[in-house]
This record gives sequence, structure tokens and C-alpha cells, in this order.
Amino acid sequence: MAKPAITTASQVLELSAPLPLDGGQSLSGVRVAYETYGTLNADKSNALVIFHALTGDQCVASPHPITGKPGWWIRMVGPGLPIDTDRFFVICANVLGGCYGSTGPASSDGDGRPYAMRFPVITIRDMVRAQVAVLDALGIEQLHAVVGGSMGGMQALSFAANWPERTRAVLVIASTARHSAQNIAFHEVGRQAIMADPKWQGGDYYPSGKGPENGLAVARMAAHITYLSEEGMHEKFGRKLQDRTEKTFGFDADFQVESYLRHQGLSFTDRFDANSYLYITRAMDYFDLAEEHGGRLADAFRASKARFCLVSFDTDWLYPTSESRTIAHALNAAGAPVSFVELSAPFGHDSFLLDVPALDRVIQGFLSQ
Amino acid sequence: MAKPAITTASQVLELSAPLPLDGGQSLSGVRVAYETYGTLNADKSNALVIFHALTGDQCVASPHPITGKPGWWIRMVGPGLPIDTDRFFVICANVLGGCYGSTGPASSDGDGRPYAMRFPVITIRDMVRAQVAVLDALGIEQLHAVVGGSMGGMQALSFAANWPERTRAVLVIASTARHSAQNIAFHEVGRQAIMADPKWQGGDYYPSGKGPENGLAVARMAAHITYLSEEGMHEKFGRKLQDRTEKTFGFDADFQVESYLRHQGLSFTDRFDANSYLYITRAMDYFDLAEEHGGRLADAFRASKARFCLVSFDTDWLYPTSESRTIAHALNAAGAPVSFVELSAPFGHDSFLLDVPALDRVIQGFLSQ
Repeated sequence: MAKPAITTASQVLELSAPLPLDGGQSLSGVRVAYETYGTLNADKSNALVIFHALTGDQCVASPHPITGKPGWWIRMVGPGLPIDTDRFFVICANVLGGCYGSTGPASSDGDGRPYAMRFPVITIRDMVRAQVAVLDALGIEQLHAVVGGSMGGMQALSFAANWPERTRAVLVIASTARHSAQNIAFHEVGRQAIMADPKWQGGDYYPSGKGPENGLAVARMAAHITYLSEEGMHEKFGRKLQDRTEKTFGFDADFQVESYLRHQGLSFTDRFDANSYLYITRAMDYFDLAEEHGGRLADAFRASKARFCLVSFDTDWLYPTSESRTIAHALNAAGAPVSFVELSAPFGHDSFLLDVPALDRVIQGFLSQ
Repeated sequence: MAKPAITTASQVLELSAPLPLDGGQSLSGVRVAYETYGTLNADKSNALVIFHALTGDQCVASPHPITGKPGWWIRMVGPGLPIDTDRFFVICANVLGGCYGSTGPASSDGDGRPYAMRFPVITIRDMVRAQVAVLDALGIEQLHAVVGGSMGGMQALSFAANWPERTRAVLVIASTARHSAQNIAFHEVGRQAIMADPKWQGGDYYPSGKGPENGLAVARMAAHITYLSEEGMHEKFGRKLQDRTEKTFGFDADFQVESYLRHQGLSFTDRFDANSYLYITRAMDYFDLAEEHGGRLADAFRASKARFCLVSFDTDWLYPTSESRTIAHALNAAGAPVSFVELSAPFGHDSFLLDVPALDRVIQGFLSQ
């Protein structure tokens, strides 16, 4: 990514106080970029926060600032949609460590140069803490709900555990309470691919404007496989050839799945900062909600009075149903009201972003209470 | 890998005739390096071929020429072991395209320089064809059995389909009759990681001796995840930290699984040629035994009179049981005698190399008939 930070039309809040971080440091001058949809009511009781996923952004239902494509959850967020902006005041903020206007490794460190790898390693809770500061600034005491898929679900769980009074409902989709060894392994492959690219230059690639695009593309390709199901890839691509009738006996993208993955990798480098990818994946790998609460996941939810809803997908092998079940058991042990449903969808982990009408109904039903 | 080809103590056969290839070319001066164990009997009826896997080699039960470690299947091959060298004359050859003495991209092209990417793209059937030439040279008309795990299983299937008179038994372990979209996808990530490394230099890295080690390490890391099961990784590593009691809030290998993967990646570059990795993965991706036989897998086995045994592992998600089941159905449709067993083992795809006593019993039983 050429520019140190992507320019967005989002609102930006600069936090007045330094943000304390789980790593022990604190960060001054933190900026949080966010989008809102709908209208905050007089008693500020209709606010709802959506937390975005690893490579997501705050433009839930706004055009993407680089690609110009529609927001990533327009099927879910809008007037009359399951997350109904006629009813709710919806807030989505770019995560701390991100590259869409919130403070991250591409931001200036105060001495006028980008942080790069001098940016502190952050956690999921640190990301949430920055977003709680936005709620404070907006004077919102308690949310109607927090909602998140994948890394967004981790943030929703962290919010429920650490700011239990501040939401009445928690909706967690295709997520987990801790990153597994296999999850960490895939992220480590991605990080090593980025760091192995000579253009990474120890993270200090911003002045030249040319980052580790090859490494970032490989990282994205590896990750992208984990977002799809084996069955879904078979249905979509199988062994179909790309714009040819015969194999070429060469190393071009003979197969459609190769062409698709290469495109996913290359297009990603236009819209994401490699250092942000390092920091955000690290935060996910560090995430272990039980560990943060004495080793017992149920204890994370002791103080919560919120209603919970957990959704998993039967073809998601990144955060499979068993991960949601573990959370459901902990919530039961903590005496929290929880509904838990495994939906059937062919798209693997990405199902939470795609056309799964059953998910629409679950979200609408849960939020309408 | 610094040297253009690894020096082994293996026997080497130089084929007297050019080897025809599926891609339409033919290759002159092909050398095949192979190891043998046991003694060929007078009527040459006790020979057995083991085909090796992607990153394997011919040193089944001999010390590895670089690492000095024991052969990769010493638990299975030896006097009194399931593949009993007191009874069988066991042959294992380095595959065409490999880097352990058989002709591959690191070999001289005849003009005194390494082929590099001028080496022709080969197929699994081409690999088998080279090994059949070894049998011809040894005067072995018919084998007692062919045996292979993973890519070795593909070769065993290809042998059975294309040289049906030349073996009495076929043992295929943790394998598949065609590479799936997901299989291709993971290989493509690896190839892109290698090719993205500036030290790859379009494949012409041999003169300098320094190949794309970073890219090859990343490729190996990604592949290695697919060789293990999620459960196995959880059991072995979980979220355990590496030689530390606290997370460092940095990008070192905090987690054991990170340290393990980095080691797997780095150590691989000492013992494998990156271009060989490109060519062999390509051959695997091209493999589709049904496609080679008019689109119907059963037709691949029409001429075979061999007995078949298929083994899968319940935690193998690279070539899951469903792939073996597909082969079993085709063999049934072709009227071939086949036994098919799914074994329970925690190690994922790598189970065929590890301590799974049930596998020993299956192999011993099948070969003793």
C-alpha cells in the first residue's frame, strides 16, 4: 500500500486521554475512525455497535474508500434490514492497529514518521477499549447490542466480558473465545510470508511507498483458503480450467482456483497495509478470553446481564461449531441467557458475509427483542 | 539448497531411451536414483516397489544423505517388519523431477547448465514411467506389490491403471485419485511464495547457490499445516508458549506452534530444491486419474487383475476418507478385489509415516497374501 494511511470520509475521534494497552504501554493521540447509520434517539438507548473482522473496515454500509464497492454488510445493515437503521443507531469503527483512519502502524508516531514496527503489539481488548472511548465521547452508556463476526465476534465477547454493563445483548457469529494452534499456525505463515519479502524492510517501507506486496498477497492467499469450505471450493471451482481447454504444462494459473486465489492476493495489496496485517493477526493469536479471566471461560461472563446469541456454520473449519459450543457451555455455566444455533451454509467461514437467509432471520429475531 | 543436486550413495540408472512425457516432449539421458533392500529371488517374483511422497526420497530405510536421520519408513521396511525385506526385494526410486539423484530441474540439461524452469512440466504418470523403466532394466516383469502413501499412493494408482499386468497387488495409503480444488489451492500458495522470493530469479538460482530459501520455507510451513490434524496440533501445542512464561508482545515465536513451524520451514530448505518443489506439486495438481481414462474412474482399473487395499485416516483432512471411498467405489464398479479401511489416528495426513500399529497390521496382512 503506497500511502501511509487510507483517506476515508469517516468521522474521526481523537481520544483526549492516552489509551492504556494490555501490553503495559499507553498510546497517546489515538484516533478512531468510524461510520454511523441511523439516528441516535433522545435517551441514547438505541445504539448498536458492529465490530469488523480482520480485513474489514468501518464502511459496513458505505462505499469502500478504495475499491468503491458497496459496504461489506449492506445485505444486513440498512432501513428495514435485519440490523435496521430505521430503529438502531449503528456504529462501526476501524480497529486500533487498522489502516482505515484509526491509529495503526502506518500512523505518525508523533515525531512525524510512521510507527511501523515501533507500534506496540495490541490485543483484541485494546481494540475494544478504543471503541469504548468512542461510546464515552458520544455519551452512550449502554448499547442495545454488540454484533460481530469472526474477529468481530472476538471483540463482542471481549466487550461483554470487560464492559458487562454496557450492552444488553451480544451477538457472536462464526467466532471463538480463543485462537487455536491451527489458527495461530495459519497466521504465522502469513506473517512469515510478509516478513520474508525484502520489500518489507523491517516494516519501514512507508517512505518508499512500495510495501511487501508479494508477501502480503501470499499471506492473503493462504488465509483465504481457510475462509472457504472444501465443499464450497469444490462446487465453485472443482478442477475447472481458467479460460483454456487444456492444461498448459506450465506454471500459469491453469486452474480457476489458482486464478481466483492470485486475484484475491493481488487485489488485497491495494487495500491493506502489511504492517496492519501483522499487528491484527497477532492480536487475534493472543486472544484467549478464558486466560484473561483466571483460566475459566465462564468467569469471563460472571458480571454480564446481557442476552447472548451464538451462530456457527456447519462448513466453517476456521472457527468450527465446537468453538461456539465451548462459549455456549461457559455462558450456561455463568447463568447467562444464551441461544446457540449452527446454520447450514456451503460457504465455510465466509458464510457470515454471504447470502444465508437463515442468518438474516436469526439476527433480526435476536435484535428485535 | 546450495548444490545443484544432492549427492547420494544410491544406485543410479541412466535410461538408454528418451523418456516420453505426457506433456508431449521427451527427455533424454534420464537418470533414476534408487535404493533396494532384500534380495531378488531367482524368478524375480518377490519384488515390491514403494513410491515416495512429495518431499520424500528413495532412502526408505537408509540414512538420509543430508540430515543423516534414519530412513523415513524404517518402522515399516526391514527384516521381519510389515514390508519384510527377508521376503521381498524392495525398490524405492527418487521421482523424476526430484532432487535426490533422479533427473530434475537441478540436473544438467545436456548443455552443461541446470534445466531450472526449462525442465518440462511432468505428471504423476511420467514419474511412474521412469520407475517402470527401472523395472525393465532389472528384468522384473511383475511385482508382488506396489505401495505408496500420499503422492506415493497416486503413483501406485497410476501404475495399476497404466501398467495393469505388472503388479499383483496395490496398496494405497492416505491418497486420492485426483487433486481437489483445496489441494491445488494450498500448492499454489506454496508456489507463489517461492516465485515471489527475489532469490528465485525465475528459477535460475543454481549458479549462485543461494535459492529462494525464504519462499520455500513459507511454502513448507503452509503445507505442513495440512499434514497435521487440528486435534493433533491442539494436543501437541495448544496455546503453549515457547521457552517463556509470558507473551512478549512482539513478533518472536511466542507460541510453540510458531516455533515448530518456523523450524519445519527452515530445515526444509537445507534438504530440498525449490524448483523440484514447484514441479512435483504441479504434477500432483495435474493428477486426475479419471480424466486420464475418459472421465470415469472405474475405467482406469478395467484391465487390472491386481488386489487392492486402500487405507485412510479419520483425521486426514488433506486426502480425507471420502477420497479413498471414491476409489473404492470405482474399484468395485470395475470388479476389482478391494479392501478399504479407515484407521483412527490423531496425526492427520502424516499418520501414514507415524506410529499407527493398526497400519502395520493392515500392511503386513495385505502383503502376506
